[in-house]
Amino acid sequence: MKVIDVSWPISRATTGYKDRAVVKFDEIKNFLRDGVRETNINLSAHTGTHIDAPSHFLRDGKTIDQIDLSRFIGRCKVLDLTDVGEQITRNCLANYEGEINEGDIVLLKTNNSTKIATDKFSPHFVYLEFTGAEYLKEKKIKAVGIDYLGMERSQSGHPTHTTLMHADIGIIEGLRLRSVKKGSYFFVCLPLYTIGIEAAPARAVLISDNM
Amino acid sequence: MKVIDVSWPISRATTGYKDRAVVKFDEIKNFLRDGVRETNINLSAHTGTHIDAPSHFLRDGKTIDQIDLSRFIGRCKVLDLTDVGEQITRNCLANYEGEINEGDIVLLKTNNSTKIATDKFSPHFVYLEFTGAEYLKEKKIKAVGIDYLGMERSQSGHPTHTTLMHADIGIIEGLRLRSVKKGSYFFVCLPLYTIGIEAAPARAVLISDNM
Repeated sequence: MKVIDVSWPISRATTGYKDRAVVKFDEIKNFLRDGVRETNINLSAHTGTHIDAPSHFLRDGKTIDQIDLSRFIGRCKVLDLTDVGEQITRNCLANYEGEINEGDIVLLKTNNSTKIATDKFSPHFVYLEFTGAEYLKEKKIKAVGIDYLGMERSQSGHPTHTTLMHADIGIIEGLRLRSVKKGSYFFVCLPLYTIGIEAAPARAVLISDNM
Repeated sequence: MKVIDVSWPISRATTGYKDRAVVKFDEIKNFLRDGVRETNINLSAHTGTHIDAPSHFLRDGKTIDQIDLSRFIGRCKVLDLTDVGEQITRNCLANYEGEINEGDIVLLKTNNSTKIATDKFSPHFVYLEFTGAEYLKEKKIKAVGIDYLGMERSQSGHPTHTTLMHADIGIIEGLRLRSVKKGSYFFVCLPLYTIGIEAAPARAVLISDNM
């Protein structure tokens, strides 16, 4: 069994969306004084690798605890879109017509994956444009993931998110896919089991070989 | 594929270890005012389901990011120890002699799993006594999990933790196993990818059937 970690490291220096400061680690006990270490963590629900639940953008949308976890576990296709400039459109994805099947989890590997995890926020990241989201909805995939802290960028009305959310397609942001080759994998992305909120930080891995 | 969530729900009401208040959700944006919801999360690294890294109790122990994730992914045995009063000793585990194999992840299902996730902290939880930890070390398991917020209780010098940590056996606390039958499963427990600290909140699932 081989495990590939595709998660964004979380530290005080982690890139924040639009450079908002998002992570604090507060030392509660330290080894020299207390003989034990204990830390409190303060972070945005949208820090690093995370899942956006529908309630992020939809008035009556589900919260993280209301989403079926199996949406983020299963057969996955990593698409190589590193030649895309800024927008992943319907046409970009149509190149993979035969490879995307109903029930797949689709991971979009782009040039975003070359960024360092503690870089300044990059407003010109590659994003899933609205027509690309519509295409994935038509393909009836389970979830889609991208390798930056956002998937939408600044489209008016958040049409990428709302299209995916209305179609009950899971949204994973903040993956790290630099070392991952395109192809098929078994994917597991587990968000913290937070109750009643619109997103949760998550850890994501690709697993190959037999269980 | 069937996914069984064995994680402790995280909310403002979540039971804290020794009743310390551990979880805050701060609303940064709300739907009525901002057209979007955004939350900051403040929690102890030891909230709910979590992994203790060796640096929790060992001076030069590894932090969460230094642990091999595959330790928390793989074949797992759920042992039914619901008839144990307070201490899981070597003798309790010896009843499962033939069932625990090298490389297993062992989950200890006890009466702790009947507690409600928001109850007051229960100081008399069932715990893994030192001789039980030594037994698991001899069996060369990969990781051990228990269904309460601690595994050690109040043994002087933390011998359960330090025995497991020196043997490089992963430690998972805060599982919820009430609905899980004893037996073999495929287990995935993914802690947040925090850098440089002694523990991390995690989500854990059992997966059955084929990948």
